[in-house]
Amino acid sequence: MSVEEIHKLAKSIFESQPFTRFIKAELHHIDKKSVEIRLPIREDVQQQHGYVHGGAISYLADNAITFAGGIALGGDALTSEFKINYLKPAKGNYVAAIAKVISTGKRQSVCQCEIFSIDGDRTTLCAIAQGTVVKI
Amino acid sequence: MSVEEIHKLAKSIFESQPFTRFIKAELHHIDKKSVEIRLPIREDVQQQHGYVHGGAISYLADNAITFAGGIALGGDALTSEFKINYLKPAKGNYVAAIAKVISTGKRQSVCQCEIFSIDGDRTTLCAIAQGTVVKI
Amino acid sequence: MSVEEIHKLAKSIFESQPFTRFIKAELHHIDKKSVEIRLPIREDVQQQHGYVHGGAISYLADNAITFAGGIALGGDALTSEFKINYLKPAKGNYVAAIAKVISTGKRQSVCQCEIFSIDGDRTTLCAIAQGTVVKI
Amino acid sequence: MSVEEIHKLAKSIFESQPFTRFIKAELHHIDKKSVEIRLPIREDVQQQHGYVHGGAISYLADNAITFAGGIALGGDALTSEFKINYLKPAKGNYVAAIAKVISTGKRQSVCQCEIFSIDGDRTTLCAIAQGTVVKI
Repeated sequence: MSVEEIHKLAKSIFESQPFTRFIKAELHHIDKKSVEIRLPIREDVQQQHGYVHGGAISYLADNAITFAGGIALGGDALTSEFKINYLKPAKGNYVAAIAKVISTGKRQSVCQCEIFSIDGDRTTLCAIAQGTVVKI
Repeated sequence: MSVEEIHKLAKSIFESQPFTRFIKAELHHIDKKSVEIRLPIREDVQQQHGYVHGGAISYLADNAITFAGGIALGGDALTSEFKINYLKPAKGNYVAAIAKVISTGKRQSVCQCEIFSIDGDRTTLCAIAQGTVVKI
Repeated sequence: MSVEEIHKLAKSIFESQPFTRFIKAELHHIDKKSVEIRLPIREDVQQQHGYVHGGAISYLADNAITFAGGIALGGDALTSEFKINYLKPAKGNYVAAIAKVISTGKRQSVCQCEIFSIDGDRTTLCAIAQGTVVKI
Repeated sequence: MSVEEIHKLAKSIFESQPFTRFIKAELHHIDKKSVEIRLPIREDVQQQHGYVHGGAISYLADNAITFAGGIALGGDALTSEFKINYLKPAKGNYVAAIAKVISTGKRQSVCQCEIFSIDGDRTTLCAIAQGTVVKI
């Protein structure tokens, strides 16, 4: 598939996820090696102290890893496992999860993901994740 | 604190999480050693194949681990890291995340979490998670 | 395969691992659902404070998970990923890693592992691990 | 502490680990942000197919993460948890684990580690790991 076809397929899968629409995440960028998903910050995605809820961040990590791995595997895929370390509280305008493919075979890919919060002109690394994606 | 006081504090923190209200999760059970959080299944929490989105399951794991660890630590806490393995697709009536404290010190607790889907009278283990909770 | 045949195959693979012989680990118990590997504690496996080195414990977790998963998958297998939380320092007579199969498919199994130290009549849970095993 | 003092302290702790001497690992490089530990490949560290045993690789990840985090924290430290994904079989002359500090606070650091095998002029990324180091 061409980069344009990959982008189109990924976009159509992304937009067909009801939870992704519900949480209002956006597929910001996609190429053969990486994916960026963004989540606008508003009250609905926060925890009790006004920061983005760890569960919303773990959703971003899970989904960015799925799409990065899926592109490497050339089709519909799912995250079979991942691990996340939270580093700093996330607040500001939006959260961006950037996942990259580290290694890929025919059946599975291993990806890493960095999750940043963007608050005006300040970018903070909030979490890092690492996981496995398997072809469906 | 008594079990009643712990339950009351945990419930007040749980209900003060906007993301938890947004996603409509429920604090079903809590005692000194375990926590159960439930998520009713409806379209809003699904992925592209009609199963519960991995990101919604990872939210449940993250939050159940936070509350189990927080009770062991005796106050407000956060999950500093966790790892999840997805085992089976989740569908049916609701998802239940049951987290248990495995080991606790003064500053941090280590917890495990099982995530089940309940479909009528059928219960399926959908994911397992393991993580660390630190006192704020 | 019968339980006896499985035990025989697992034992032959275990004993053909040079690192396992070098570190002097022992395949203590094996059945269709769980595996126990033991490591006698002596100076060679310790870190700078006289406790068992985390790397020796992670070897035990890795290998116990491999054998538990391999039995579930019915043949030679390898651990593709795992995560470990260290809970307490390990000291005493020996360390025992007990891995159990939580879920298995045709190609991969997910296992959990508890690592105990045994010091006379005192048993301490020192670490917990969770990982994926894939068939070769 | 100066870079020289840090190097000296790390080296003295490294050399006081009996398991590290037993397995014959070498502290190859150390600075304020990263650590490289090498393990010469010989039969003693292999598994049943002639590759480096995953348990030897997990030891390298655990220990490289401990030393990278310990330097960031300014003293003796231990890995409280880590996760590893195995990517390719390791064979050749030696294995090199390079750990980097991603984020650090007063009490804990989060590190990532890449583990390479070096076979003549061929370098292969064999595993990636991510973990937490806490000050003792």
